[in-house]
Amino acid sequence: MADEFDMSLVQRGARLRRTPYFAATQRYGARGYTVYNHMLFPINYGDLETEYWNLINNVTIWDVSVERQVEITGPDGFEFANLLTPRDLSKCAVGQGKYVLITDDQGGIINDPVLLRLGENHFWLALADSDVLLWAKGVALSAGMAVEISEPDVSPLQIQGPKSKGVIQALFGDEILNLDYYFFKETQLDGIPVVVTRTGWSGEVGYELYLRDSREGERLWERIMEAGKPYGIVPTGPSDIRRVEAGILNYGADMTLENNPYEVGLGWLVDLDQEADFIGKEALARIKSEGVRRKLVGVEIEGGPLAFNMTRWPILADGVGIGEVTSAIYSPRLDRNIGYAMVPIEKAGLGQRLTVAVADIGERRATVVRKPFFDPEKELPKG
Amino acid sequence: MADEFDMSLVQRGARLRRTPYFAATQRYGARGYTVYNHMLFPINYGDLETEYWNLINNVTIWDVSVERQVEITGPDGFEFANLLTPRDLSKCAVGQGKYVLITDDQGGIINDPVLLRLGENHFWLALADSDVLLWAKGVALSAGMAVEISEPDVSPLQIQGPKSKGVIQALFGDEILNLDYYFFKETQLDGIPVVVTRTGWSGEVGYELYLRDSREGERLWERIMEAGKPYGIVPTGPSDIRRVEAGILNYGADMTLENNPYEVGLGWLVDLDQEADFIGKEALARIKSEGVRRKLVGVEIEGGPLAFNMTRWPILADGVGIGEVTSAIYSPRLDRNIGYAMVPIEKAGLGQRLTVAVADIGERRATVVRKPFFDPEKELPKG
Repeated sequence: MADEFDMSLVQRGARLRRTPYFAATQRYGARGYTVYNHMLFPINYGDLETEYWNLINNVTIWDVSVERQVEITGPDGFEFANLLTPRDLSKCAVGQGKYVLITDDQGGIINDPVLLRLGENHFWLALADSDVLLWAKGVALSAGMAVEISEPDVSPLQIQGPKSKGVIQALFGDEILNLDYYFFKETQLDGIPVVVTRTGWSGEVGYELYLRDSREGERLWERIMEAGKPYGIVPTGPSDIRRVEAGILNYGADMTLENNPYEVGLGWLVDLDQEADFIGKEALARIKSEGVRRKLVGVEIEGGPLAFNMTRWPILADGVGIGEVTSAIYSPRLDRNIGYAMVPIEKAGLGQRLTVAVADIGERRATVVRKPFFDPEKELPKG
Repeated sequence: MADEFDMSLVQRGARLRRTPYFAATQRYGARGYTVYNHMLFPINYGDLETEYWNLINNVTIWDVSVERQVEITGPDGFEFANLLTPRDLSKCAVGQGKYVLITDDQGGIINDPVLLRLGENHFWLALADSDVLLWAKGVALSAGMAVEISEPDVSPLQIQGPKSKGVIQALFGDEILNLDYYFFKETQLDGIPVVVTRTGWSGEVGYELYLRDSREGERLWERIMEAGKPYGIVPTGPSDIRRVEAGILNYGADMTLENNPYEVGLGWLVDLDQEADFIGKEALARIKSEGVRRKLVGVEIEGGPLAFNMTRWPILADGVGIGEVTSAIYSPRLDRNIGYAMVPIEKAGLGQRLTVAVADIGERRATVVRKPFFDPEKELPKG
């Protein structure tokens, strides 16, 4: 057993919640914890490259209970959920999930959850790091809808990688393999209530297990580790190398409330043509028709392998900041430094040359390139 | 110079914001960072007891930029701010601050900021750890008020301890000493724009400097360190020993959205008699008239010195959990383990005997006692 991580390095008092898998993450040697939605989030167990190779060659388990849920129920549950997001939820079946944005009235991005439709008027939002519970409650105050908004006892784990299908099959039997990309199934495992979704944050085939009883975290974790043993399962943090390869954005780093969907390339999540109103519709229609002034583009940064950026790196033109690299990391299989940069629209064209002020290193040349950097048709996760 | 803290233990990528004083906190040897309002928060530089003695005997500087601000302006700014909080803001003068609660429509506590009234319709809320910006924007959507809600470029530092007056006098001259408890002054220091408030989270005399230009963090920090040198100033985290002695609550640990003001002893922040409506008024009137079913009480826990609790410790009756210790810490000058516990109302009377399941240790006996544990009339901070 590994030495436990000293939590006093990252918390003071009992303010932050621990996940139902916390003891397991300590026992399996988590070597860092960040905070996400007011909860402690195990971010890595070893070096990022080893975790990456495990993900793309085998299978990994991540504790992502920090994707705290907002549950929407009540007779007007559909209408309310549809008001919260620019995506047209009439196209989301019961039993289906959707990647959605939550926007404010200016079109600013509040969050980018995976939404699950559990019933006609019953939804979960698996959140990125912002208090959508408070936003939704504030909106509901005078929306005049019959709706209830709460945080359910739901704690997701991700099981990701090419061998995740074997693990899930071992746990739930053959039928689970019929689950289509972004669909889910409510089921149980040795009496432990779970929702199994065909989703993930990896660009690989993957599943999420949403545990519905936080008292069962320990038992669920060990049950998965046991079933995953023949497949080489290991606990890791989410892989930023792999998600950047896949063009996946990280809320807070690659987009914030200051960004609208169009400038970060998520205009496909905005259904302006739907009849229903949603928060931000007017602003987003205006932004779309006017066009954006800046854009999040793919970049390749020259020179030797760069460590994952911990701050945004300025993009300079004649020594003046004109944009920022939001995420940048070295991809071992591409043998390149890849990432995203928010740049003025006139610098966003493919092939544009940029200068990046890399923290602790200095200036590096970069080029605007197409993203995703790997598997652009998402054949892997859908496969 | 101390070794820098390895930030990869607590963050992954550029998702979390750093404060304007971040480089200084690293240079002065911060030994831990937590996350608060999506920002990195230096929580200690040495052991908690040494920091405590520095606070109560001399003067300490804390980077609390994580108290992110919500700014409310616009013609209906007063009306909107007054809608957000149960406290009657007609009693808050321009130039004055108030400790307030933000409540939802059920009377649940969303946050407990210090509010500053900068103009008739101009307010700042210095937040505890929850996204009040989103709550306020959600409420404003259909409130029909002419109001703007934003996050200003404001980064507070606390300067706390009996010698803080000397430091502030050295920085701003004699006149600043006329500032009454919870009042503030907009001023500047060598051209750096700041608001100086007579507030703090310590139970000691103290000030906060709200920096209004994040580019000046480094210069402000060093200017204070220089002025504070003769007074023995040292950078520390906030002192949980001292704030528990003072009966000060920590949002997220001692109260959450699940609590109402009456059960945590903050009923004095609810002005039900005011004519104006506020969010939660009806619910809070009902709760007050019905009486609370549980209460946050002061406790003394027997036995040797306990380390600060990192989880809530169950309170057991016949082996069953009936409540929780929310904060508990050893006070060196009182030579006792002191803290708070949420208990059923029938266990809340002074002298009640409790059994606490202390993490990693086991059962300890405890007694309900009066709080604050030290200086109950707040003579020190007002002095």
